[in-house]
Amino acid sequence: MEKIKLITPRIGQMPWEEKPDNIVNAPIWRYSQNPIIKRNPIRNVARVFNSAVMYYGKDNTPFIGVFRGEGVNGWPYIYLGRSNDGLNWEFDEKGIQFVNKKGEPDNPHCPFDPRLLKIEDTYYIIWCHINHGSSVGMASTKDFKTFTRLDDPFLPHNRNAVLFPRKINGRYIMMSRPSDTTHTRFGDMFISESPDLEFWGKHRFMMGTTDQWWEDLKIGGGPAPIETSEGWLVFYHGVQHTCSGFVYNVGGVILDIDDPSIVKYRSKSFLFPPEEWYETTGIVPNVCFPCAAVCDPETGRIAIYYGAADTFVAVAFTQVDEIVAYIKEQS
Amino acid sequence: MEKIKLITPRIGQMPWEEKPDNIVNAPIWRYSQNPIIKRNPIRNVARVFNSAVMYYGKDNTPFIGVFRGEGVNGWPYIYLGRSNDGLNWEFDEKGIQFVNKKGEPDNPHCPFDPRLLKIEDTYYIIWCHINHGSSVGMASTKDFKTFTRLDDPFLPHNRNAVLFPRKINGRYIMMSRPSDTTHTRFGDMFISESPDLEFWGKHRFMMGTTDQWWEDLKIGGGPAPIETSEGWLVFYHGVQHTCSGFVYNVGGVILDIDDPSIVKYRSKSFLFPPEEWYETTGIVPNVCFPCAAVCDPETGRIAIYYGAADTFVAVAFTQVDEIVAYIKEQS
Repeated sequence: MEKIKLITPRIGQMPWEEKPDNIVNAPIWRYSQNPIIKRNPIRNVARVFNSAVMYYGKDNTPFIGVFRGEGVNGWPYIYLGRSNDGLNWEFDEKGIQFVNKKGEPDNPHCPFDPRLLKIEDTYYIIWCHINHGSSVGMASTKDFKTFTRLDDPFLPHNRNAVLFPRKINGRYIMMSRPSDTTHTRFGDMFISESPDLEFWGKHRFMMGTTDQWWEDLKIGGGPAPIETSEGWLVFYHGVQHTCSGFVYNVGGVILDIDDPSIVKYRSKSFLFPPEEWYETTGIVPNVCFPCAAVCDPETGRIAIYYGAADTFVAVAFTQVDEIVAYIKEQS
Repeated sequence: MEKIKLITPRIGQMPWEEKPDNIVNAPIWRYSQNPIIKRNPIRNVARVFNSAVMYYGKDNTPFIGVFRGEGVNGWPYIYLGRSNDGLNWEFDEKGIQFVNKKGEPDNPHCPFDPRLLKIEDTYYIIWCHINHGSSVGMASTKDFKTFTRLDDPFLPHNRNAVLFPRKINGRYIMMSRPSDTTHTRFGDMFISESPDLEFWGKHRFMMGTTDQWWEDLKIGGGPAPIETSEGWLVFYHGVQHTCSGFVYNVGGVILDIDDPSIVKYRSKSFLFPPEEWYETTGIVPNVCFPCAAVCDPETGRIAIYYGAADTFVAVAFTQVDEIVAYIKEQS
């Protein structure tokens, strides 16, 4: 098998479990102790799901994350969490308090589905919130103490946006999924560029739905793209419309490293669908919604963090060689 | 009545007809010879509607315009037209041929509903086309011979975009109406800023639908905003959803001159609804869709050009004093 390199920052430790012997036809295997975040994990928060984590390695905090918490009043908000091993998490009881550039309180309305990544020396949280429609929200932090909001990069209606973890040709790159006002029944993924994270343009189509049933209704970005020697590895969700509701599956593509609007390989098969009880049972059954990946460049190990059934957070594992080979083979 | 000034470029002549004596309760009156563009006006073009004109005054061409022509094959395209009086129009038989920045052919797919305006020494055409969904398209020209496309300013799905006719605080300003993939059943108007017409940001909500039936489904921009001593005068369309389809009425607002996201006055009443045979009868009955205004700062006269029933182009007249007073009174 061709050796693929992860071109990602070195990390101090890696959440990991070896592939079980009984997983033979799938490139991804679930953590045996899933879900890692169960119901009622924070006071006044009924469920945590669709959340993003990363290796931090500072302030006695190996792993840090931003978590979508659904309050007992039904409203979503973003909570900060810390972990020693990336699998067992402790949360701040109060949601993240955002400020504007003047330092004044500036909290988004109903933020949900946060993503998290680092570019150069700054961490960025990107979410969706209600700002005259579903709109992409952003904030930056250098210390996970002060979270400063940036202007929404796009007009509504848009969801599932995430930045690439480095500039390409001197520009920040964001992928996103234009949407509508409701449980959107369409959706393709686009790439946009910015010189400064303030003004955006050069919008280009990246990839759309296909005639594969598991992703024929809409698709949307997940974790920040993962740089590999084969191109940008992107995990995303693909949605099937059944007679009883939507089913969210996990798909994978590899994008050109210099022009990520070019899809080099795209797996015709999903990487994994909802199967386990925590994915098929919950407030929204049959949802696997990937939001983050922790990668270890020394071993090629990847841990995918995904929301399960809009109720839990779960983890699945793969190896970069194995997943890239699978995506190419199924392309 | 307070004297309001039009702060618009001087023009050499003005299409005009005095207000008839029988129009007593309305601030706007229709041209007696409407529609000014009838069916089959161009070879192989069945209908021209939703089109924009302006005073030009060069090349023996007093008035120039960009026209949505619906081919006999059903596809829309943009045609160039010229007029001596702003009321009688002649058209190029072939649609406008657009090029990219390298001068290579670069025609949009299905462009429709063009707007037209001048900023400094450059003319801009802005339309909606199909680019992986309804998307705003743009081109610039200095001579109406070479039309050079710019990148689409926003992600899909978006319609009814138009630039302001001058920069505000050093930035280009665009209003637009985020949409969806179909005959959109929602829609508010937003303002965006750009330093260079290439990258856009600072998106702000401008105005939304109201509980007035004539505009309770969606709204969308029309002519380029008109600068007056009272603020930016904006004519727009407001859509009512009846049991038999949509009805497009013409509304009016006045925006703050320095921050056009601030609506100073908004008429609760429409300025005019579909009433005449050419507005109520056609391929889409009951549509008045304003796309342009010709203004004479010396007399305060305004001619509004609007598409009628997706079939014709018609003209209506008003005076800046009268229309501003009406919008303020009905606000």
